[in-house]
Amino acid sequence: MYLMLQDRTTGNGYNGGKRDEDLVLPINSSLSVTLHQDQLKTTTTAAISKDFTEDRIWLNGREEDVGQPRLQACLREIRRLARKRRSTGDEDPPPLSLSYKVHIASVNNFPTAAGLASSAAGYACLAYALARVYGVDSDLSEVARRGSGSACRSLYGGFVEWQMGERADGKDSVARQVAPESHWPELRVLILVVSAERKLMGSTAGMQTSVETSPLLRFRAEAVVPGRMVEMTHCVRERDFQGFGRLTMKDSNQFHATCLDTFPPISYLSDISRRIVRLVHCFNAHHGQTKVAYTFDAGPNAVVFTLDDTVPEFVAAVRHCFPPESNGDKFLKGLPVRPASLSDELRAALDVDPTPGGVKHIIATQVGPGPQTLDDPHAHLLGPDGLPKPAA
Amino acid sequence: MYLMLQDRTTGNGYNGGKRDEDLVLPINSSLSVTLHQDQLKTTTTAAISKDFTEDRIWLNGREEDVGQPRLQACLREIRRLARKRRSTGDEDPPPLSLSYKVHIASVNNFPTAAGLASSAAGYACLAYALARVYGVDSDLSEVARRGSGSACRSLYGGFVEWQMGERADGKDSVARQVAPESHWPELRVLILVVSAERKLMGSTAGMQTSVETSPLLRFRAEAVVPGRMVEMTHCVRERDFQGFGRLTMKDSNQFHATCLDTFPPISYLSDISRRIVRLVHCFNAHHGQTKVAYTFDAGPNAVVFTLDDTVPEFVAAVRHCFPPESNGDKFLKGLPVRPASLSDELRAALDVDPTPGGVKHIIATQVGPGPQTLDDPHAHLLGPDGLPKPAA
Repeated sequence: MYLMLQDRTTGNGYNGGKRDEDLVLPINSSLSVTLHQDQLKTTTTAAISKDFTEDRIWLNGREEDVGQPRLQACLREIRRLARKRRSTGDEDPPPLSLSYKVHIASVNNFPTAAGLASSAAGYACLAYALARVYGVDSDLSEVARRGSGSACRSLYGGFVEWQMGERADGKDSVARQVAPESHWPELRVLILVVSAERKLMGSTAGMQTSVETSPLLRFRAEAVVPGRMVEMTHCVRERDFQGFGRLTMKDSNQFHATCLDTFPPISYLSDISRRIVRLVHCFNAHHGQTKVAYTFDAGPNAVVFTLDDTVPEFVAAVRHCFPPESNGDKFLKGLPVRPASLSDELRAALDVDPTPGGVKHIIATQVGPGPQTLDDPHAHLLGPDGLPKPAA
Repeated sequence: MYLMLQDRTTGNGYNGGKRDEDLVLPINSSLSVTLHQDQLKTTTTAAISKDFTEDRIWLNGREEDVGQPRLQACLREIRRLARKRRSTGDEDPPPLSLSYKVHIASVNNFPTAAGLASSAAGYACLAYALARVYGVDSDLSEVARRGSGSACRSLYGGFVEWQMGERADGKDSVARQVAPESHWPELRVLILVVSAERKLMGSTAGMQTSVETSPLLRFRAEAVVPGRMVEMTHCVRERDFQGFGRLTMKDSNQFHATCLDTFPPISYLSDISRRIVRLVHCFNAHHGQTKVAYTFDAGPNAVVFTLDDTVPEFVAAVRHCFPPESNGDKFLKGLPVRPASLSDELRAALDVDPTPGGVKHIIATQVGPGPQTLDDPHAHLLGPDGLPKPAA
């Protein structure tokens, strides 16, 4: 069982808090784009066997504690769905026993726990893989959500809404696709990686503290987000980049404002993040319109949205403000970007002191599809013995 | 005419926006402490003479544009009050003509425009000096406010409230003393100077943009601040450091949250500011109570409140986290602080990577009185010719 999936939230700010920690329910709806697996992906293999003596999980080649509560909640939920399916008796009982232990191996090709939504991609991928193993074909929102709230959005490609729902049991807190990945072909996503360090505080703990201590977060969830959801959905449907970009930036800023209003305060943005913000605003001011837009999740890396015809000039601007250090040829990863030079006017407009090495590299990507099944056995992460294959 | 005055806002967050840009009216009330002039002061000399051919001003020895609108508004307002006083005829007309031009010289002994409230101190001092020159003895709130809103608070010593008022003409937007400087003798103020660079954006322009673009700022002004004003005033009156400290930190964080929610966003805090925040929370967590509290105004420098018996240990903690570079003996300025060593437990609790030179120096001070008149002619900044004296 293999699959690949990657995810990246756009209106990440929309997911600024959860109302119920056990059920992992959000305090407001949210919207995200799923990024393309050619550039960012999680690959997960899950296998069950009567020969396995315990549940085990390996993350990026290293065995991790399988007893962590969120992982256990996912396993419980998928086994519950599998049991329910069999008891309806609409087909022959599958040959695999529900009592079999599971082995899971998962690999990201991007830094884990650095604010690149690794847990969202990971849990969505896990839910999808477990569903195949256990023969579950119902809605997986709840399985993924139990692992990491925003993971439920990653079960779909394109532009995805996570409806907060109203029910206390969370059954109506589900993801739905707003537009498929083919909807806006000109849209590009540039990930400006400024740090691969692990965060000091995981975003789950941070969000819970925010809900408890930030008066601004409650106001935002009740009075600001509902209108923005309508506006953002409209911008996506109309492919209105100016509206989409401005709202994305405002919402990212507001999300981080509520982090700062948390007590003790949470700061995900670094000085480099702030220089990127300034660069984007200078770039747009020079052009007299919103040509690029940033969003920051629970970390200092910037995710920049733009249209394909703006990518070369903006990448040149990033190179100008953050001259690459040693890895000049590896600075740009992902989709190819043709070289461009900066006009003297734009160079003068970029009122940012150059910070060599401030941006480590750029990953150029685009909107992509939801989870995919890999049929090639060579891509499996577990060998016939149920243990991770040695790295090639 | 000479006077000295210094100022520093505590509930600076309370002053997160102004409702009328011309009248300089705030969108919420605020509270500040006035710092002691032995450590931080503005000295201003104003003189009028029939021999002066134009209004002129020198700031820190350099002549500045006297035509700047806020300075002109101050001059207009003080001359209006002087004219009004004479027309009431309750004493002989003073010998100095209202048509005389004025020369003004002002010096700060702390960095200008670096988030240390230099404009508040400057305009309060200016209003006080002009009032002496023009023989005005009415309430100077409006004169000072026209220059810099928060300057009206600096006209008093001790703990000062700036009541936002309700009238459209701002006549009831005045400062009043909540408690005198002698009220809380154990209270100490440590200014952690992290940067003497000029700000990229002045706080006046920033505040105006915030009022126009931040939904969180409006909510804060209407729904959060009124209750906090009551609570903060109570904490000051009761000398409740725990309550005072926690609320000061929360309010500073919320003020900066509304800056981030502004579009384009405003960031006054730097990575060093954030490390100081972390240091303070680690320090308090170690002690199991709020022993120190930070507040940040429109810049990266931290103002830390604590009680006198905590100063030595906290200064040692700052030295540990921000080892002084070359100026080891000039690291600590102002009030004397006896050396202290850190316990191993506290050292371990300070989960902050040491950043050499991150804090340039500490100014140790305390709550102080309002504007003072200097009678010694040697302290005058203008010579008999009405021009700045050469620096001694």
